[in-house]
Amino acid sequence: MTTSTNKAIEGALKFSRLHRKQAVEKLHSFVRFPSVSVQSQHAQDVKNCGGWLAGQLQSIGMPRVFVVPTARHPIIYAERVVSKNAPTILIYGHYDVQPADPESAWTTPPFQPIVRDHYIYGRGASDDKGQLLTHVLALEAYLKTSRKLPVNVKCIFEGEEEIGSPNLEAFITRHRRRLLADAAVMSDTRMLGPDRPALTTSLRGALGFEIEVRGPRQDLHSGNFGGAVHNPLQALCEIIAKLHDENGRVTIPGFYDQVRSWDSDERMRMAKTGPSDSQIMDDGQFKMPWGETGFSLYERTTVRPALTVNGIVGGYQGPGGKAVIPSQAVAKISIRLVPDQNLSSIESSLISLIARLTPPTVRSRVIVLMRSEPASIERGHPTMEAAANAYHAGFGTAPVFVRSGGSIPVVAMFKRILGIPTVLMGFALPDDRIHAPNERFSLHNYFRGIDTNIHFLAEAGRVLRKRRAEKNGTHRKDR
Amino acid sequence: MTTSTNKAIEGALKFSRLHRKQAVEKLHSFVRFPSVSVQSQHAQDVKNCGGWLAGQLQSIGMPRVFVVPTARHPIIYAERVVSKNAPTILIYGHYDVQPADPESAWTTPPFQPIVRDHYIYGRGASDDKGQLLTHVLALEAYLKTSRKLPVNVKCIFEGEEEIGSPNLEAFITRHRRRLLADAAVMSDTRMLGPDRPALTTSLRGALGFEIEVRGPRQDLHSGNFGGAVHNPLQALCEIIAKLHDENGRVTIPGFYDQVRSWDSDERMRMAKTGPSDSQIMDDGQFKMPWGETGFSLYERTTVRPALTVNGIVGGYQGPGGKAVIPSQAVAKISIRLVPDQNLSSIESSLISLIARLTPPTVRSRVIVLMRSEPASIERGHPTMEAAANAYHAGFGTAPVFVRSGGSIPVVAMFKRILGIPTVLMGFALPDDRIHAPNERFSLHNYFRGIDTNIHFLAEAGRVLRKRRAEKNGTHRKDR
Repeated sequence: MTTSTNKAIEGALKFSRLHRKQAVEKLHSFVRFPSVSVQSQHAQDVKNCGGWLAGQLQSIGMPRVFVVPTARHPIIYAERVVSKNAPTILIYGHYDVQPADPESAWTTPPFQPIVRDHYIYGRGASDDKGQLLTHVLALEAYLKTSRKLPVNVKCIFEGEEEIGSPNLEAFITRHRRRLLADAAVMSDTRMLGPDRPALTTSLRGALGFEIEVRGPRQDLHSGNFGGAVHNPLQALCEIIAKLHDENGRVTIPGFYDQVRSWDSDERMRMAKTGPSDSQIMDDGQFKMPWGETGFSLYERTTVRPALTVNGIVGGYQGPGGKAVIPSQAVAKISIRLVPDQNLSSIESSLISLIARLTPPTVRSRVIVLMRSEPASIERGHPTMEAAANAYHAGFGTAPVFVRSGGSIPVVAMFKRILGIPTVLMGFALPDDRIHAPNERFSLHNYFRGIDTNIHFLAEAGRVLRKRRAEKNGTHRKDR
Repeated sequence: MTTSTNKAIEGALKFSRLHRKQAVEKLHSFVRFPSVSVQSQHAQDVKNCGGWLAGQLQSIGMPRVFVVPTARHPIIYAERVVSKNAPTILIYGHYDVQPADPESAWTTPPFQPIVRDHYIYGRGASDDKGQLLTHVLALEAYLKTSRKLPVNVKCIFEGEEEIGSPNLEAFITRHRRRLLADAAVMSDTRMLGPDRPALTTSLRGALGFEIEVRGPRQDLHSGNFGGAVHNPLQALCEIIAKLHDENGRVTIPGFYDQVRSWDSDERMRMAKTGPSDSQIMDDGQFKMPWGETGFSLYERTTVRPALTVNGIVGGYQGPGGKAVIPSQAVAKISIRLVPDQNLSSIESSLISLIARLTPPTVRSRVIVLMRSEPASIERGHPTMEAAANAYHAGFGTAPVFVRSGGSIPVVAMFKRILGIPTVLMGFALPDDRIHAPNERFSLHNYFRGIDTNIHFLAEAGRVLRKRRAEKNGTHRKDR
């Protein structure tokens, strides 16, 4: 690395160290927006949150910031070009969050962030507001000190990740040329532990849907009608009970047909580098494993598909009892898909299975809520080397490669439309309780994350320039 | 009947006819109280409603009215003694109501009663506020005209019927001597149609409970953990799916062992006088029967027991999806019991079944919410004759005997503690939507109900006096 680059890194790191208090204040402000993308009553909050983020980007010195409206929640786009020929990094993050419910299970209100024991608590603190800000603050550290970034930077911060990014593909397709880059980077994944950074190399896809079962035209008194009519809630349970067999396998016909199988080398590597069964049970605070026999829990949650009931709405939900047969019941379900399952064929197979499992005494329909393709990231890409070096500089230790069971729709889109890999360099911890009550983000990781991103931008510039030079050299030699 | 009795009836009927507007206004005021007994946030509303009712009883001329506090909601007690030796009728009703949810399914707000097409709409309009008031207004009609009632009257109006009358048994036991009567009467049951009055001769019992299934200590991200942990919501569905067999029978061991079987005469009588399958499907607005094979729908809902899932609470309930594995899930279930099932043994058999059906991957427990014994009423009791005559006078046609699938805990209590039968002389219609959104009560039945009760008090006095005279005669002869 050149001396000027080293000086720029030193200056940025120093700035970051001196502005930790402001960094925490910014995260407080960010978390305070209840930017719950799935709930229409929060649409204005999502918009306000995006506006706040755009303001931040402007104030740190990004010259071009756009608030791009979509059919639902705006995309915040910003860019800063160092030179036309410099390597380009596309930074992605999302400023929307999961619903906070059940709110009663929170120790402190989800949208009133608070710092306790070096953690900041609040919905979105970890997923993804805190992690997203590590990138913004890394950019700020450079721009406020050396006034120059080590690479060209383009930022896409969306407000619809938690609802499956329904409007992102159109945006990326429309602005394909403008978005061209060498690689994307995002921080929206987990490390293995406080000092165990991890580069995620695969994500599961997702198919989110509802099964709606309808019975009598209106709710009925269960004393007067109990025993004579098929209760939609009971029928729904009967359908759900048939979606897994006794070996924990999903019963959708053809579900496992295309699932990629891994050779013993890869499975051994996973066993060695990934979390053990007991680690996963500790992280999730459960005492007994469950699921598809013949696979480790790490495999079950990453390279094997799964089907989860996320919620059931039907009948009386209040305290005590109510003598009612509900007229309908709905289950919210999500399937996690892995390479090389075909999303569309799983979807149609699911729809026919539900129709077949529905007895003539009730009616049912499947409503698809979201679709996300599974994704894999090539470990050999130069930006993966840059990320490994950055983690080492930020956390003092080299990262391991891990697979994630989660879904981030944009990763497959970047690959398919822009032809670039996405570096999944996350700073979340396994017990951050993302999507759950009392979500939190370690301030330790927040600060280290900013530093890691400072290193990453410099490292990405270095390795990409080096790779280009090598390629050009090879080229010349070839001639 | 004596001329003075006839004059008293005529006077009361005329008063009732001239005060229909006031009767509707009173029902409006009564329904306006959201006296939802199961929801603690409505405790004060229940209390206010009871206070209003006590005020009504005082204002119509009942000399002794008591608001009796209980562990939860007060009992309103009133009495008027004509003479120590006169026959005594105990009038029962309940001023609490079912929850109004789902409130979004109501055309007009549940606690803002409104009259449309000669029906009054609102929660509790039919169950039981409108029906209860028919008794109060019949008493008023006598007291404001002849200043004398045809019988001694004692009124018990409770605020806990919809939660299984948990404090009523203690009250009846404590005040056993004060409550002594020849029979009880209540209007909290259905007729077969607008011109088809019906005397209910049996009620099912009820056992209300929750099954709570717990898994991981907190909600988990279903991407990160889906496939590795048994989802409590899925486990709950799997348990519920096993509570019925493929013939629609409940699988609790011994569940049907004590169920009273009826001979072909009684079954033919039921087939003849009770609603047909298609009538029940019309009333409930469903197109296909379901349940225990070998029995008519009328039998399934009255002389056969049933198990109904009344609600499930678990996971995400809002719009769209949420990638979560809930840490626990709860089903609210009620069993309807028939003679001669033993409530306690069914309860313990249920608890062991749930324990057996719970896989080692989750934990479960059963929480009993309410218990109510099944009840039968002897058709030959003189007050049943009085009720038949009163219906005939009020509706122009004789009632049929019907069985009900509902549960009214007090009926078995009156029998066991006071040794008296309860005349179930209801004015609800099958499509009153009790316990459901848009509950309503026919004003036609409201007015006819008041008149029927005016006749009933006189008729009850007549038949009970006659029966006593006969008994005394027999007595004398015996000597």
